[in-house]
Amino acid sequence: MKAYVYEKAREIGDEFGDYLDLASTAVISIDMHRGHLDPSPDCPCPAPRARDVVAPIDAFHDAVRALGGRIVHVKSVLRPGGVDDVNGIASTWRRTFPLHVGEIPNAAEHAIEGSRWTEWVTRVAPGDMRVENKRRLSAFYPTDLDFLLRNQRITTVVLNGGFTDCCVLNTAFDAANHDYRVIVLRDLVRGTDAHLEAAALSMVSLHLGLALDSQDLLAEWQRRRTGLTS
Amino acid sequence: MKAYVYEKAREIGDEFGDYLDLASTAVISIDMHRGHLDPSPDCPCPAPRARDVVAPIDAFHDAVRALGGRIVHVKSVLRPGGVDDVNGIASTWRRTFPLHVGEIPNAAEHAIEGSRWTEWVTRVAPGDMRVENKRRLSAFYPTDLDFLLRNQRITTVVLNGGFTDCCVLNTAFDAANHDYRVIVLRDLVRGTDAHLEAAALSMVSLHLGLALDSQDLLAEWQRRRTGLTS
Amino acid sequence: MKAYVYEKAREIGDEFGDYLDLASTAVISIDMHRGHLDPSPDCPCPAPRARDVVAPIDAFHDAVRALGGRIVHVKSVLRPGGVDDVNGIASTWRRTFPLHVGEIPNAAEHAIEGSRWTEWVTRVAPGDMRVENKRRLSAFYPTDLDFLLRNQRITTVVLNGGFTDCCVLNTAFDAANHDYRVIVLRDLVRGTDAHLEAAALSMVSLHLGLALDSQDLLAEWQRRRTGLTS
Amino acid sequence: MKAYVYEKAREIGDEFGDYLDLASTAVISIDMHRGHLDPSPDCPCPAPRARDVVAPIDAFHDAVRALGGRIVHVKSVLRPGGVDDVNGIASTWRRTFPLHVGEIPNAAEHAIEGSRWTEWVTRVAPGDMRVENKRRLSAFYPTDLDFLLRNQRITTVVLNGGFTDCCVLNTAFDAANHDYRVIVLRDLVRGTDAHLEAAALSMVSLHLGLALDSQDLLAEWQRRRTGLTS
Repeated sequence: MKAYVYEKAREIGDEFGDYLDLASTAVISIDMHRGHLDPSPDCPCPAPRARDVVAPIDAFHDAVRALGGRIVHVKSVLRPGGVDDVNGIASTWRRTFPLHVGEIPNAAEHAIEGSRWTEWVTRVAPGDMRVENKRRLSAFYPTDLDFLLRNQRITTVVLNGGFTDCCVLNTAFDAANHDYRVIVLRDLVRGTDAHLEAAALSMVSLHLGLALDSQDLLAEWQRRRTGLTS
Repeated sequence: MKAYVYEKAREIGDEFGDYLDLASTAVISIDMHRGHLDPSPDCPCPAPRARDVVAPIDAFHDAVRALGGRIVHVKSVLRPGGVDDVNGIASTWRRTFPLHVGEIPNAAEHAIEGSRWTEWVTRVAPGDMRVENKRRLSAFYPTDLDFLLRNQRITTVVLNGGFTDCCVLNTAFDAANHDYRVIVLRDLVRGTDAHLEAAALSMVSLHLGLALDSQDLLAEWQRRRTGLTS
Repeated sequence: MKAYVYEKAREIGDEFGDYLDLASTAVISIDMHRGHLDPSPDCPCPAPRARDVVAPIDAFHDAVRALGGRIVHVKSVLRPGGVDDVNGIASTWRRTFPLHVGEIPNAAEHAIEGSRWTEWVTRVAPGDMRVENKRRLSAFYPTDLDFLLRNQRITTVVLNGGFTDCCVLNTAFDAANHDYRVIVLRDLVRGTDAHLEAAALSMVSLHLGLALDSQDLLAEWQRRRTGLTS
Repeated sequence: MKAYVYEKAREIGDEFGDYLDLASTAVISIDMHRGHLDPSPDCPCPAPRARDVVAPIDAFHDAVRALGGRIVHVKSVLRPGGVDDVNGIASTWRRTFPLHVGEIPNAAEHAIEGSRWTEWVTRVAPGDMRVENKRRLSAFYPTDLDFLLRNQRITTVVLNGGFTDCCVLNTAFDAANHDYRVIVLRDLVRGTDAHLEAAALSMVSLHLGLALDSQDLLAEWQRRRTGLTS
């Protein structure tokens, strides 16, 4: 099948077969919530590029469910009163990101538990799993994602969602360190800008796992399900 | 002082003063060992670009020691027999990096405990601290680095060493998630190539911490020590 | 002040002063929820002995709040469908505890998210903190309790709640390993039976921290607040 | 086969078959080093009761090796200079254990890297695995034991070694939380005294796993190997 290595498409072979077994795979969808995606000017941590992938991620998830695959939605939620961020030790991005984009007006409201900013924008179906206490960048920290995946005997993770060069890349690093096989869906992630997005995908492809197009992965899963091999 | 934000130099002010207190800082030097840096053709995981920073890192460390600062050297060491890698679940980079650079002849020898490939190339002084069981990419995994830093009441980490776009970036992500203040020394890290090196430093500067020149940081520490502020 | 060492009361001195600073302390109240404490025959994991401490814990917490102290309530919550327990890899106690007490009729309902069994029985006040994804025995696993305490710069934890010889003891071990100063409130914890309760408190007093009576600790905090020393 | 539930022997049946598969098991031997076991008056953290199990543990390990089983030896090692203990944040037992046993003369030397106190007293064979940076009580903290076991696809751990009511019990808690099947070998562990030893084994048997005699477990492994079932 086709993979992207340092942004160049190439065919990879059966040696990656262990990455492609849907029965031991979970799709991890990262931070597709209103705090990043809401179009209003109050959006506390805007990631407007990722709005483009809301509908495609929903469609991909429907196809995964139809094949019997498992989906875990992960999102940032912070405690009221800022006790685990602005009034404790502030997240690093709050210090540094404004150096690039300027002051973020409503940033203190980002991800606060019980607020509208934590609402999912992509669809969460009844059988899906949820991890709702990401507090920093990685989907693994300080959440129970690793615990959940082990309990489910998952060995491959397929990542989609937001900030290719931040939370998605960090999650890919953590997954690789924990010896999961990692796939990042090139068409279903979005980064700060096109340049860092491509660079992050290149890093994934060199050090961490496979960068694939979602349609190619779906086709591969379908092919394997019907007993054919690539 | 001068910081690099998305590769552009700019002045930052006193709001980053908490990053610049040497007494609560540790310099973390990552993977400056023979397995990456040896010039021989047998080098099991070559990172030739990083040879350029061996002498500058040694000089920086000497200056840090002279100021009374603390240094932690971290390196990859794998158990004999490959029980925690090639004969267990193989590191992801072993699967993916060859797609970019071709087969790596001696890769199975990488970081094996007791072999010459684990020898330090930079100088480790008697009072320095060592973390010698990094098994994957991050200096934090699955090591006791976080434990050690907490025990030492360290709150800021200053990173140098190897693979800006891999182990250094991953370490910066982990440090940021654990609420350390993060500095990456732009002139004392090297990546896969100049493009990914710059991209990784941009990611650091946007999401994780400060990208600084080592001379600027030393000057700042000296200035603060003598009671002057920037 | 008075501490219990291997179940014998004795005076300890100023060398434990660092355990007694309320400003850097959090009270951790463990698993005081309906799944353990409900009097109905359907209670999925009955801990009837702990019902005796519901009112005393509430009173202690009120006194702590009046002194300006911080409280973290921790409870077990499992995902619907048993994906992180009975339909994943089952918790060990499900295998072993019935060897002692016989089959537990409604055990599969224990701690299920959204069910009445996860309701708090002790009072949770608006300013209190909550950790609501304990999945196994320790209050630290796989929760963000350590992350939260670090963020709050807490260095001492004071434990109350349920199963002295199980979740409380396990939490004390984890807290000690993470270099927190540990206090277990002897009169506000309850175990499987009086024998294991006493043995667990003895283990705490030898290896992990101080076993104190809650009134003595309150008195000590009050004394220190008014500038007097013991 | 025979198990001990709250110190009473009883027969358990095939429902525990998943605990008894040697191919997915590792024996974890805890802290059988000179710092606990040396007979000299300088022994920095004496655990004299555990000297009785040195020869029996060696014999058990030989039998395990003969059956093709895997063994991991874990020991405490602390950095020179006390940077991760006495000159950082001191281990809790240093504060509390002397309340019970009086001052421990040479305690500051305990487990110091490079000293004789870290020498193994039980035999470590060439094919065995070693974890040599336990810094506190649990064999899992802050070591890479969990990483190593996952990499080896181990699902059951069999514990022997020292301080039944401290490091062994803590390790059993951590193993249970991480969803390993846990066996503690009743005749190959020793605690502070007979009372706490028995209490710790009772806690294991109720909450964490199986308390077995080593000969019974060996016999069971042998029976399964030759195709017979209990």
